[in-house]
Amino acid sequence: MNSWEEVLSLLKDPAFDRILVACHRSPDGDACGSSFALSSALRKMGRQARVFCPDPFGEDFSQIVQVERDLPFFEPEHFITVDIASPEMLCGAPFADKIDLVLDHHRVNTVSGTVKFVNPEAASCGEIVLEIIRALNVPMDRFLALALYTAISTDTGCFRYSNTNENTFLAAAFLSGFVERGDFYRINKRFFETKSRARLMLESFAAQSVTFFAEGRLAVLSVSLARQKELGASYEELDVLVNVIRQIKGVQVCFVIKEKEPGSFRVSVRSEEGFDAADFCAFFGGGGHLAAAGCTVQGEESQVVDALVCEAERRLV
Amino acid sequence: MNSWEEVLSLLKDPAFDRILVACHRSPDGDACGSSFALSSALRKMGRQARVFCPDPFGEDFSQIVQVERDLPFFEPEHFITVDIASPEMLCGAPFADKIDLVLDHHRVNTVSGTVKFVNPEAASCGEIVLEIIRALNVPMDRFLALALYTAISTDTGCFRYSNTNENTFLAAAFLSGFVERGDFYRINKRFFETKSRARLMLESFAAQSVTFFAEGRLAVLSVSLARQKELGASYEELDVLVNVIRQIKGVQVCFVIKEKEPGSFRVSVRSEEGFDAADFCAFFGGGGHLAAAGCTVQGEESQVVDALVCEAERRLV
Repeated sequence: MNSWEEVLSLLKDPAFDRILVACHRSPDGDACGSSFALSSALRKMGRQARVFCPDPFGEDFSQIVQVERDLPFFEPEHFITVDIASPEMLCGAPFADKIDLVLDHHRVNTVSGTVKFVNPEAASCGEIVLEIIRALNVPMDRFLALALYTAISTDTGCFRYSNTNENTFLAAAFLSGFVERGDFYRINKRFFETKSRARLMLESFAAQSVTFFAEGRLAVLSVSLARQKELGASYEELDVLVNVIRQIKGVQVCFVIKEKEPGSFRVSVRSEEGFDAADFCAFFGGGGHLAAAGCTVQGEESQVVDALVCEAERRLV
Repeated sequence: MNSWEEVLSLLKDPAFDRILVACHRSPDGDACGSSFALSSALRKMGRQARVFCPDPFGEDFSQIVQVERDLPFFEPEHFITVDIASPEMLCGAPFADKIDLVLDHHRVNTVSGTVKFVNPEAASCGEIVLEIIRALNVPMDRFLALALYTAISTDTGCFRYSNTNENTFLAAAFLSGFVERGDFYRINKRFFETKSRARLMLESFAAQSVTFFAEGRLAVLSVSLARQKELGASYEELDVLVNVIRQIKGVQVCFVIKEKEPGSFRVSVRSEEGFDAADFCAFFGGGGHLAAAGCTVQGEESQVVDALVCEAERRLV
């Protein structure tokens, strides 16, 4: 772990040029916003820089991504990773052993680089990149503000998650000064207030099919393979369901039970204070965090549900 | 409209005592948070003060409201209104013609008071009350921070709405310094991430019943009286439905059509840029804003839907 000064001094060095700013596979708002902002800032400092990602960017990011559409080609000589917690997230990119600068906010970061700076107190990498831009006196502009706002807002659920802190709000306040009225609203609308019809139907299925136990404190949604086929939803798409039933008033613990292969059920557990999801899942051979954990249980669907509900009720007394 | 200095000088006067801080009927987060924060701040200045509301506060506000549970009684001599845009919102309270100070952020405010300060640039009244508290050097504490955060976050949809601005974020950053980790998260969870089962079923109904026109740009949901009975939902509860269909990807205009009396349909219209909801509703004898308007149309349900869809399609070419 290097100091903030070492980060700045590396970036200030004019010989640090022809830079690839790498972000992780399945890029989210923070990966995309932080990397494009840093790359753009480096170009404003007179360097050649562009973003690399092993995966294509979703259409929600097109306004950010288009800024590099017509960049002249260059052979990269220096490499920065942003928001990348482990080398695997680079999907075997050939420069993985030549990284000059690692910037991240994940508590555990296993990427090796000449200079490494990780701040787990930052709610998003966007906040770290903003600090760099301000420290290097790169003039702010609307593009940087929009990219960094995208990074910050998406990684905090638009300031709702518990990672949101004083610096997150200060960053958003600062960025407000460089955008036009309605800019942030349009980003919020795109990322937080838009749902596909398929998503809406899935949520509707969850509302219709959830069952309750322990006087409404436990909500359970089981989706057999047959049901998945009926819904036309992939196993991965079912991941959103836990967020629907988690929100139900009075629910303290919830399970989404997805049949992965015949007779094998993957269980996602979410809980509020007073129920240790990790400990519960460990009982079934799984693990995770206090409020979010998972396990895999084998058997008939009804047996699996019964076993999980029975153990949860025992703990909810 | 008086100056900021006149507001402060009134509040600084020790003779300004025995104060009722009034908030509006059907109190929301801003009404509740702003009024209880101001009342608490006045008590910290050595005055007697308490909140008045024509309606009871919802259980979501119990943590704020309980602070005044054991206040000694006093006969109020001075009156402040907070977040009250018109005298009707006081529901005929006997002090309506004796208001000393009007504090508000609504663009149009028709309340009369000796000193009147309205700042429509403030996203919430909470921001105005925070400025007052800071200007009067009242020591901040966790209660004030939680009450004001409730005010600010609820009036901005947790920083999502277009009224959110630099000052909103600066206020939230400042308040962050006076709470414990997880405090804001718990407020966000309560106000933005919790839904009753009935609400979830209503949303599910919307997802199942919405129909699309104009290649998915127009979404229409009609709820006849018979359907309302079936759903067990009151006419007022249907108001949430427009927010469900408004979110559907690709939807530029949406209608929720609620039968109010047999053959009389109340239409709520929401639109994105490029469709003037006010002008559309004016065509049917109604009115409102660019992005949110309403009208009442008489007829058979199918005729009403046809007429609205036909006119909207004409405008969506």
